[in-house]
Amino acid sequence: MQDLKAILFDTFGTVVDWRGSLITELSEFGSARGLSVDWTAFVDDWRDAYKPSMDRVRRRDVPWTILDALHRESLEMLVAKYGVTGLTEADLDHLTRGWHRLHGWPDSVAGLTRLKRKFIVAPLSNGNVALLVNMAKFAGLPWDMVFGSEIPRAYKPDPEVYLGACSMLGLAPEQVMMAAAHNYDLSAARALGMRTGFIARPTEYGPKQTKDLRAESDWDVISNSIEELAEQLGCEI
Amino acid sequence: MQDLKAILFDTFGTVVDWRGSLITELSEFGSARGLSVDWTAFVDDWRDAYKPSMDRVRRRDVPWTILDALHRESLEMLVAKYGVTGLTEADLDHLTRGWHRLHGWPDSVAGLTRLKRKFIVAPLSNGNVALLVNMAKFAGLPWDMVFGSEIPRAYKPDPEVYLGACSMLGLAPEQVMMAAAHNYDLSAARALGMRTGFIARPTEYGPKQTKDLRAESDWDVISNSIEELAEQLGCEI
Repeated sequence: MQDLKAILFDTFGTVVDWRGSLITELSEFGSARGLSVDWTAFVDDWRDAYKPSMDRVRRRDVPWTILDALHRESLEMLVAKYGVTGLTEADLDHLTRGWHRLHGWPDSVAGLTRLKRKFIVAPLSNGNVALLVNMAKFAGLPWDMVFGSEIPRAYKPDPEVYLGACSMLGLAPEQVMMAAAHNYDLSAARALGMRTGFIARPTEYGPKQTKDLRAESDWDVISNSIEELAEQLGCEI
Repeated sequence: MQDLKAILFDTFGTVVDWRGSLITELSEFGSARGLSVDWTAFVDDWRDAYKPSMDRVRRRDVPWTILDALHRESLEMLVAKYGVTGLTEADLDHLTRGWHRLHGWPDSVAGLTRLKRKFIVAPLSNGNVALLVNMAKFAGLPWDMVFGSEIPRAYKPDPEVYLGACSMLGLAPEQVMMAAAHNYDLSAARALGMRTGFIARPTEYGPKQTKDLRAESDWDVISNSIEELAEQLGCEI
């Protein structure tokens, strides 16, 4: 990996704690409005809607749609399901943009800052550009570039997402590492010749998480945090 | 401009001193190789080749081509014209990538750092993503996002370049300012509803510069540096 030049990060779960951030935000919103809702279940349902909604786009059952719009559609479904009433258009927009206001894991900013001195660091995410740029401002993520999904107009794990980013960086896949807390994402990247870095996030889905608890292959680097990834790649503090 | 959220920057000439940087780099390269060439004229010719080469792409006389490749083509022409001999493939690649190693004007990093606290800051440049990302690493430019030309696969002043960036940021054109040292760039942005910020760079083309010496319209902000732009937009030091 002596020729490694760039590290591309999955974001939801790998860099930011979407679940904890959204449960806190929605609970505060609900309290302020006097709404009695199980917000933890609500957030878990919201995330569960993500893959099916994205797969409809990947199968081209629906035209290209950015993640903000998919989040909004599933939010409207859940508002009905949980019987949340009295929300205005502005409320729905604000809640959808909760995905722009996610906090990094405690090691994220420090780890990325270390890696950035030696490598190009960028998200390679299914989030849209505005979501990722706003998230970076909110959470202080020091990206060199932001690869949002509407640049290739495709969602991971479709190959053009990974290869398009390598190409735009003017790098061969073997000069680029995919870093993720999800084994499927690293499998897709490895199949295309990229390097792979696993970052364990065993509480991403809460205390009852059952998948991605550990590396399921011999990824090039296996770590428990972005700081540990930086350490293993020889980046000084 | 109370709703201004993002500032997009032209880069060559506006943020970085391409001419001074390349003259220095090529002169050092020439000295080390014992080449006797008028490198100032060489660099001015190289930049003069930029617009015609890009216009061929804009007119679709040739397929989509990134700026790195256009720079390489014109470099090969100039190497022949100036009778430079003995260059290897690696030399030509290194010289082409001289455009990735341009220094900011003295106010650029400080000005962008100030603006970044309040606004999204990004290049909106005819450079390709790799060129702009590498330039940012080299010159320390603290971009939030990098809008390279292969994202829209179009070159300024084509409207889709400006509108595509606003759309990816999830912003209306009036929430976004184009900042440039070139009046034509601001004219194109204003015609699409964007805000405009002029930054005078009267020595971009050297001591004999004749164009873009001053603002040629009542741009929303007219300044002499990126720091002055930040000052006028109320960004604290």
